[in-house]
Amino acid sequence: MPNIYDITMTVEESMQVWKNYEQKKPRISNVQNHDEGKPHESLLTMNTHTGTHVDAPLHMLAGGATIETITLERLVGPARVLDLTHVVDCITKDDLVPFAIQRGERLLFKTASSLSEEFLMDFPFLREDGAKYLADIGVGLIASDALGIERAQAEYPTHRTLMRNDVIIVEGVRLKDVEAGNYTLVIAPLKLTGIDAAPARAFLMA
Amino acid sequence: MPNIYDITMTVEESMQVWKNYEQKKPRISNVQNHDEGKPHESLLTMNTHTGTHVDAPLHMLAGGATIETITLERLVGPARVLDLTHVVDCITKDDLVPFAIQRGERLLFKTASSLSEEFLMDFPFLREDGAKYLADIGVGLIASDALGIERAQAEYPTHRTLMRNDVIIVEGVRLKDVEAGNYTLVIAPLKLTGIDAAPARAFLMA
Repeated sequence: MPNIYDITMTVEESMQVWKNYEQKKPRISNVQNHDEGKPHESLLTMNTHTGTHVDAPLHMLAGGATIETITLERLVGPARVLDLTHVVDCITKDDLVPFAIQRGERLLFKTASSLSEEFLMDFPFLREDGAKYLADIGVGLIASDALGIERAQAEYPTHRTLMRNDVIIVEGVRLKDVEAGNYTLVIAPLKLTGIDAAPARAFLMA
Repeated sequence: MPNIYDITMTVEESMQVWKNYEQKKPRISNVQNHDEGKPHESLLTMNTHTGTHVDAPLHMLAGGATIETITLERLVGPARVLDLTHVVDCITKDDLVPFAIQRGERLLFKTASSLSEEFLMDFPFLREDGAKYLADIGVGLIASDALGIERAQAEYPTHRTLMRNDVIIVEGVRLKDVEAGNYTLVIAPLKLTGIDAAPARAFLMA
């Protein structure tokens, strides 16, 4: 068997969430337990964009495609981790050109966000020109280690450029313990339907 | 790339749940949307035993191990789908002996439950003697296509026998479109911690 590298954020009440907003925190409560003479069961309440998750186009495009349209075939297969830990503020086209990115590639961006358990208010994000460059190449998937692939661009041009060009967006992967290079990627979202996103388990194999 | 067979139950409000109990149904609601000038986001509320999920020993054993102790290495790898669609009422040791099951195997049980979108009140379950037989062999994992691996045995001897012998229990896989035989299995639960179970995406590759 290959080595497995879990790149998923643990879903727990103390986890980092977008801009530390209270309403973005997951809630996990006990609904029955052995003290009552019953099996132990829990109730999970979470925003679909919590932790490691897959965005569907509907998230940023009115009338956009929903999460069940993103098949496992798109989410499983060869992938490459790019070391972008040196990037400050934002990832631009100029940062990406040296990687000689090819059509159809699945890419994981390792940035300063992988090194922090706290939400970084100034997390490095993919700037619009970088998104346009990747959409023009026709990459298959981009996984960001930040909880967002963009931070504060008016009208969300990074999300929208990628979504309009059929590039899958994954957010919140954890790459601290993973070196740059080639792997087999598995992104396994909950099988939700008709909505904007799904939380996922994600891992690399090598 | 291999063929991928998704064996996950779709999580939606109309899905089958244990004994059709209202409180076991997931709830999915919109929390913000494009009509408000905001990205579309949803809130998911679900029992951790909804749909396709992995049980941790804590579910049925007071003080038992919690879900984060079940590693991806145990949940990913070679597996075998057993055709048990002829079985009525319960799966016994006698039903299992003909398969020549080996130590460490990951097994998926295809029964009448795979052929129904409704919860079967009389679903075929793994009887205590079958569980003891599999625990003695030392199988690695059993995935049931019913929402429970047992139905109504006092003191839950099937769950408890398997859990005490380190056999992982997965419930609610969908095998209607999968033939008996050998595959590579991926069970990818949400990365929860400290609790009794986690909902999962599950698929086979061949």
